Amino acid sequence: MANVQSMAVIGLGLIGGSVAGAFRHRGLAKEVRGYALHGHAQQAADLGLIDTVAASIADAVKDAELVVVATPVPALGDVFAQIAPHLAAHAIVTDCTSTKQTAIAAAQAAFGESFARFVPGHPISGSEFSGPGAANVDQYVDKLWLLTPLAQTDRDALAQARQLFVAIGARCEYMDAARHDELFAEYSHAPHALVYAICDAVAHGPNAAQLADLAGAGFKDTTRIGATAPELWTDILLDNRVHVLAAMDRYLESMQVMRDVLASNDREGLLRLLERASAWRRGLE
Amino acid sequence: MANVQSMAVIGLGLIGGSVAGAFRHRGLAKEVRGYALHGHAQQAADLGLIDTVAASIADAVKDAELVVVATPVPALGDVFAQIAPHLAAHAIVTDCTSTKQTAIAAAQAAFGESFARFVPGHPISGSEFSGPGAANVDQYVDKLWLLTPLAQTDRDALAQARQLFVAIGARCEYMDAARHDELFAEYSHAPHALVYAICDAVAHGPNAAQLADLAGAGFKDTTRIGATAPELWTDILLDNRVHVLAAMDRYLESMQVMRDVLASNDREGLLRLLERASAWRRGLE
Repeated sequence: MANVQSMAVIGLGLIGGSVAGAFRHRGLAKEVRGYALHGHAQQAADLGLIDTVAASIADAVKDAELVVVATPVPALGDVFAQIAPHLAAHAIVTDCTSTKQTAIAAAQAAFGESFARFVPGHPISGSEFSGPGAANVDQYVDKLWLLTPLAQTDRDALAQARQLFVAIGARCEYMDAARHDELFAEYSHAPHALVYAICDAVAHGPNAAQLADLAGAGFKDTTRIGATAPELWTDILLDNRVHVLAAMDRYLESMQVMRDVLASNDREGLLRLLERASAWRRGLE
Repeated sequence: MANVQSMAVIGLGLIGGSVAGAFRHRGLAKEVRGYALHGHAQQAADLGLIDTVAASIADAVKDAELVVVATPVPALGDVFAQIAPHLAAHAIVTDCTSTKQTAIAAAQAAFGESFARFVPGHPISGSEFSGPGAANVDQYVDKLWLLTPLAQTDRDALAQARQLFVAIGARCEYMDAARHDELFAEYSHAPHALVYAICDAVAHGPNAAQLADLAGAGFKDTTRIGATAPELWTDILLDNRVHVLAAMDRYLESMQVMRDVLASNDREGLLRLLERASAWRRGLE
């Protein structure tokens, strides 16, 4: 299938809105139906991201060949349970959360036999903005979209999902779910926690107002992920808690080493640390 | 003076090159003479940032009404000592380093009576790039340029320097030197140290290659300042060591609190921390 007759998107914030709009904009689905809380579905329709505001979650998924669940992670269990009785036999269900083991467990609990047609997914492209107003039909062009299938995942469903995400511009790669959660703790979740902590220390320190005046590009870049939605991130951190704590502890240890080398006025040692670190970081560009 | 007959810029990396080019581009100096190591002066001349490559540091400053020293902080003492005997009586000397107490002490030691015409300055705009090739004649447009004068600083020299920096587009503000160093430890130096530590932990962890593949906008923004020049930053951190350690300790304490709240699975507490932090950070935009 290079495109679908009907698709449903549940949750229409930045991610769901962008996925819906990406399919609709490219004519990859004859009808894009949306369902969301907070008036987001109507907003998404007004923005041209979806064709139809579904009257209910059941209505949204009925007959849909592709169901994209783009809610925050704590809602997954409920949403999966609500859609399960209404899914078409050939429906592919996928999610967009950044903790794949939780998504898989929730799908396993809700879908029974149709679990094989659940494709755990994680499109890697967010921002500090949120809501359908922040959605962009090209949000996933040239972006990584990780899929973390299990042994029992239906190979056709997986191949079809992959083909569709590639059609909206994403680069799809497969990854083991546990490995995914470990890597994202290190690469995204723990840095969020640490940056939030820096912002909180500044916000409650004596220099909050003055630092806000001074803040230039460097500080803003470093702390940008501290502006992300607190509710969403509270749940991500809790959900991937074990891996996040392990990554935080490694970062904190490295910071303590840096602090001690600086405290001991060891120019050689400090330079060596900074050279190693910056060589790796420059390699990212 | 709305402009000068002759100015000298010592050190022609990103900062010195940008200052020189900003003056030359706007016709604010009849002649911009440059002196620098590593072939930077010839490079700056080729890029049109300066008029003349000075044969020696003495030659650069001779008769100059404005002398901008834009070397890294450890070179300041030597450079000040070398230019002191050759300065015109009416010359204003300024520097561009981010630790003002050290710059002031070096100037005090070198300049004797002409110390009154030394205006300690700090243009707030760098990037992860360096060298004259990274210079930009509009680097300081709408950027903050802090001046940290002392009681004995000549008021005319201060007013003239201010007027010139405003003429290249900067917003000049005055600040106490010790206060400046404390704020920059918190706002810039400690975050650099902590981000370098994150990069170093990743670079030497088991997932360095995989994280480099995954790295998207969020991680790159957070760690961008980890790509800055290690030698330069080693010296800044050491130079402002006492303030940097104090700021690092506050950040580390806040991170430890965040870690413990997460470890105790306290959703309310975690959400409260993230809300406080993100409210402050969103206020920066």
